[in-house]
Amino acid sequence: MNSEKIRAVQYGCGKMSKYILRYLYEKGVEIVGAIDINPDIVGMDVGEYAGLGFNLGVKIKSDADEVLDSCDADIAILTLFSYMEDMYPHLEKCVSRGINVITTCEEAIYPWTTASGITNKIDRIAKETGCTVVGSGMQDIYWINMISLVAGGVQSIKKIEGAVSYNVEDYGLALAQAHGVGLTPAEFEEKIAHPVVLEPSYVWNSNESLCNKMGWTIKSQTQKCVPYFYDKELYSKTCGFTIKKGDCIGMSAVVTTQTYQGPVIETQCIGKVYGPDDGDMCEWKITGEPNTEFYVKKPATVEHTCATIVNRIPDVLTAPAGFITVDKLSEVHHLTYPMHFYVE
Amino acid sequence: MNSEKIRAVQYGCGKMSKYILRYLYEKGVEIVGAIDINPDIVGMDVGEYAGLGFNLGVKIKSDADEVLDSCDADIAILTLFSYMEDMYPHLEKCVSRGINVITTCEEAIYPWTTASGITNKIDRIAKETGCTVVGSGMQDIYWINMISLVAGGVQSIKKIEGAVSYNVEDYGLALAQAHGVGLTPAEFEEKIAHPVVLEPSYVWNSNESLCNKMGWTIKSQTQKCVPYFYDKELYSKTCGFTIKKGDCIGMSAVVTTQTYQGPVIETQCIGKVYGPDDGDMCEWKITGEPNTEFYVKKPATVEHTCATIVNRIPDVLTAPAGFITVDKLSEVHHLTYPMHFYVE
Repeated sequence: MNSEKIRAVQYGCGKMSKYILRYLYEKGVEIVGAIDINPDIVGMDVGEYAGLGFNLGVKIKSDADEVLDSCDADIAILTLFSYMEDMYPHLEKCVSRGINVITTCEEAIYPWTTASGITNKIDRIAKETGCTVVGSGMQDIYWINMISLVAGGVQSIKKIEGAVSYNVEDYGLALAQAHGVGLTPAEFEEKIAHPVVLEPSYVWNSNESLCNKMGWTIKSQTQKCVPYFYDKELYSKTCGFTIKKGDCIGMSAVVTTQTYQGPVIETQCIGKVYGPDDGDMCEWKITGEPNTEFYVKKPATVEHTCATIVNRIPDVLTAPAGFITVDKLSEVHHLTYPMHFYVE
Repeated sequence: MNSEKIRAVQYGCGKMSKYILRYLYEKGVEIVGAIDINPDIVGMDVGEYAGLGFNLGVKIKSDADEVLDSCDADIAILTLFSYMEDMYPHLEKCVSRGINVITTCEEAIYPWTTASGITNKIDRIAKETGCTVVGSGMQDIYWINMISLVAGGVQSIKKIEGAVSYNVEDYGLALAQAHGVGLTPAEFEEKIAHPVVLEPSYVWNSNESLCNKMGWTIKSQTQKCVPYFYDKELYSKTCGFTIKKGDCIGMSAVVTTQTYQGPVIETQCIGKVYGPDDGDMCEWKITGEPNTEFYVKKPATVEHTCATIVNRIPDVLTAPAGFITVDKLSEVHHLTYPMHFYVE
């Protein structure tokens, strides 16, 4: 039995990948390729790009097929889009070559119902080529597996309530507008509260995963958009104006999941312009015996997402072939040591 | 393949067992025996004792051997003592008969170093008879497995700090005195701060379990007793006097664990007279990338302990034979449905 370093391709070199590339390097993963079409970074060495202070001899390239064909990667880390439809061609390139995938794609945390056709196709190809596809990130531990673990110390559960948040200032003008920043309550009601086609919130998919983890069957799931306000005026750098007191600073998508087994899960995913004391939220409450409240205080969502992705790699490599959601994956562990992949 | 209800003996009928008996009944476990020597309750039906409102036809008996010989129990739930030395004869009665054990004994959460002789003896007998012994309770999830899970979303760890607490008012005068309640700082320093023989705090053993779960090897472990004060005077019902401002309301045992891998674990186990706004604590902080703080807010320690014990039963029944600590046990799950034991 020989042991080799795990070989990874970074597929998508944006904000998250800078952390992921460095984390991979620190954990002893061999970076064998990097893909992005941004002309500002194509040709740059990944060591330089990740701020390691030295080159790794691997350059960011724009041709995904060329990169994937020119190395023998164990895993590709896809940090590209939030929805499976946008992900499909990129997932297909990896799984058709038998390359395992872990991705930050939010819908991929549990895409079986919101993108069932695409997910089943990827699952089937992955099984044919013998590789595994997993969606992970912040939700994996802090919105799903931690909730299930805490529930292991609870006798009976009536309801699980969650509230998680992000700062819309970090994601550009389009997202701020989509969250209703600066609208009056009447404008929010008219323009945002009643979408024609539901765009599933990130917690739509994580609620489904949590249900699956708990062994509960979903009876119904609904989503409601609720405006958020602030107790005084608030300046938005991204929008370039001050939001008046009483106007909308963002919104929360509230997803309510009813189960045949009885328990209800109600999770709020809040995207708003943060005030000076705000930070990301990750608050949970189980109503049952006993009532149980637990929190992660102002979690560093970006770092937790990237660290979870990297710590998850051994679980992906040892999982059965197919599309495997994190509720079915084995328990994630903090990796203290460099990871080595045992080649049989 | 036939399925039968799990058959359990409640061994020790004190405060915790009232919850455990009811939880067992609610989850569909068949209670086949109950043991206690307290003359006030010997002869009482366990249904009545647990406040179910009806009898279960099983009476509390004082002769443990008689109870264990008169039924075919799958598991015994031992809620008796905090230390393995006191537990030994009772553990031995169960494992010599091949009866699986789960116990709230605090030292049993990781007794391999503080009670190695006893633990190895029990481990050996359990392997001979093919049964499993597990120590569980509040620590299992909230002091060990939750910490490890949260660490799965952290890239690097320098230190893990924990603070857990209990109200000394709940455990009688002897414990209050042992915690220095009412002593001046000078008296605390003289009488309590420097014990001749170290009595391991509950977090001594849970730190060891956490290290094992994280894959870290202990280089050194120390314990220090620190007095606790309050910002005004505080009445102790148990002691029957008002503690002066500036005098000791209890103490914290601070256990510091150094590891060869680098990370340090420092956990405080605080036992004090609670003020009106105090509740049990369960607060954790990881210093690393990123820094991560998480809490369970005023946890209901008794209910969490009992619910964890009951939810753990299937894991105990399917674990390998021997003394298995919770860092080695499979992931605990909240059991929504009645439990059935599948007899092959």
